[in-house]
Amino acid sequence: MAELYKGKPVADALKEKMAADVAALKEKGITPTLAILRVGERDDDLSYERGAMKTCDSVGVAVKNVVLPADVASDSFFETLDGLNNDPEVHGILMFRPLPKHLDGEKARKMLNPDKDVDGCTDYSLAGVFTNTDLGFPPCTAQAAMEILDFYGVECKGKRAAVIGRSLVVGRPAAMMLMHKNATPTICHTRTVDTPSVVREADIVIVCAGQMQAVGKEYFREGQIVIDVGIHYNEETQKLCGDVRFDEAEPIVAAISPVPGGVGSVTTCVLVSHVVEAAKRIAG
Amino acid sequence: MAELYKGKPVADALKEKMAADVAALKEKGITPTLAILRVGERDDDLSYERGAMKTCDSVGVAVKNVVLPADVASDSFFETLDGLNNDPEVHGILMFRPLPKHLDGEKARKMLNPDKDVDGCTDYSLAGVFTNTDLGFPPCTAQAAMEILDFYGVECKGKRAAVIGRSLVVGRPAAMMLMHKNATPTICHTRTVDTPSVVREADIVIVCAGQMQAVGKEYFREGQIVIDVGIHYNEETQKLCGDVRFDEAEPIVAAISPVPGGVGSVTTCVLVSHVVEAAKRIAG
Repeated sequence: MAELYKGKPVADALKEKMAADVAALKEKGITPTLAILRVGERDDDLSYERGAMKTCDSVGVAVKNVVLPADVASDSFFETLDGLNNDPEVHGILMFRPLPKHLDGEKARKMLNPDKDVDGCTDYSLAGVFTNTDLGFPPCTAQAAMEILDFYGVECKGKRAAVIGRSLVVGRPAAMMLMHKNATPTICHTRTVDTPSVVREADIVIVCAGQMQAVGKEYFREGQIVIDVGIHYNEETQKLCGDVRFDEAEPIVAAISPVPGGVGSVTTCVLVSHVVEAAKRIAG
Repeated sequence: MAELYKGKPVADALKEKMAADVAALKEKGITPTLAILRVGERDDDLSYERGAMKTCDSVGVAVKNVVLPADVASDSFFETLDGLNNDPEVHGILMFRPLPKHLDGEKARKMLNPDKDVDGCTDYSLAGVFTNTDLGFPPCTAQAAMEILDFYGVECKGKRAAVIGRSLVVGRPAAMMLMHKNATPTICHTRTVDTPSVVREADIVIVCAGQMQAVGKEYFREGQIVIDVGIHYNEETQKLCGDVRFDEAEPIVAAISPVPGGVGSVTTCVLVSHVVEAAKRIAG
């Protein structure tokens, strides 16, 4: 029976710390503010937005909702973004991507003020995660995985770690963050030969393959800590599930984060914590 | 008996390609130009400068030497750097670091025009190597190791790779570049437990530990490809040597780059190739 690394207590601890930080900032006359820039009404965006707003509300972070129609003119979109970049009352910007095709998403990503890049998507933020400096902010999902390890007291130093997946949103940043914690990371991906045997060598496994229930018992051995970053809707069971076949992994490993109720419940907290951090950096 | 992966033929091939590119640029009226910004007269800088100038000369790249006294005023230094940043006739800037202590090296690194960062030291260049895009340029030594693998026809796809060392100059970028070539990289460092057994798993080993002859036979097995990035002066033997105990590794592995005559002889070529590439990017 594996220990369950649930996300809720991690999120609660983060919120408690944030609420204290927000109170201290408000005493200085600063209200940390997240601008949410959304184009159109995509379901995924709306759902993430609701979660972020709820978390903001619970810790006292203000939200400025900026919603543009799906067919907004390019000039108008970039003017809006520029305005948020330069608005001294906005500390963080969550810009939903991908943008509609008629808008240049790469231009928007490059234009985003890195000091307000609380979602960790600019090149500055990625350089920060690579160099381990506080340029921008790390991608929220990768950091959420680390927050779970920290909260449950997992010592990374001297451990071997495997990351399954090399995306810029999770895999690569997670590998770097594990290395900064003095683990020895191996990055597995679709071209890796015999991934299960590589992963069995690792003490800590971050699964961000992006494939529903693709990772089964052959990847695991006793004693491992497994963080499942995947989140998928299984049409057959009509339930949410992760990249890991939980029922196969759970009897083998020492600890595993469930889906739902694991990484996903920490991610928006990390996003909001970045807004607070951005405000603190400005407050000095 | 291992195959010797000497640097000279790699450098010669790079030079041949560069010379052709330079000729094509000159037909368009563009002379690729490297500015070398040196403060003071440190031996290491002077030696690297001579190598770079010789390579530039051999392929037709112009050099603009800018030498400032070791006690140059900060304002004056930054004015000079700004001038080179904005000089349309300068395509690449090699700024020797570390700068003297009275100059803010971090400010200088951040100020350097990333489009001219042929030495790969800005955050943009590091983001480029992390994201596998052509922001700036990768650090020359890490790329030199890759050029050797490419020249000798080493297929990285599906192979396991170990990098010993996690510096921003070699270890981390080399791991990313190996991953972009579809190898599965593991980054070992001073906190790794039992590095030799981790390294023996790898098919390709990049040694950039920064310690003279620290890596001996216990790290190796048959069939491995070893690139030794270290370069040290052994006071005892009065000879140059690498991080690897060559005499122990050579009888075991399939191929190894010697020191001297390996990576070091490719690095300045890579630097100069970045100047040519910078000029080509501008020429469009």
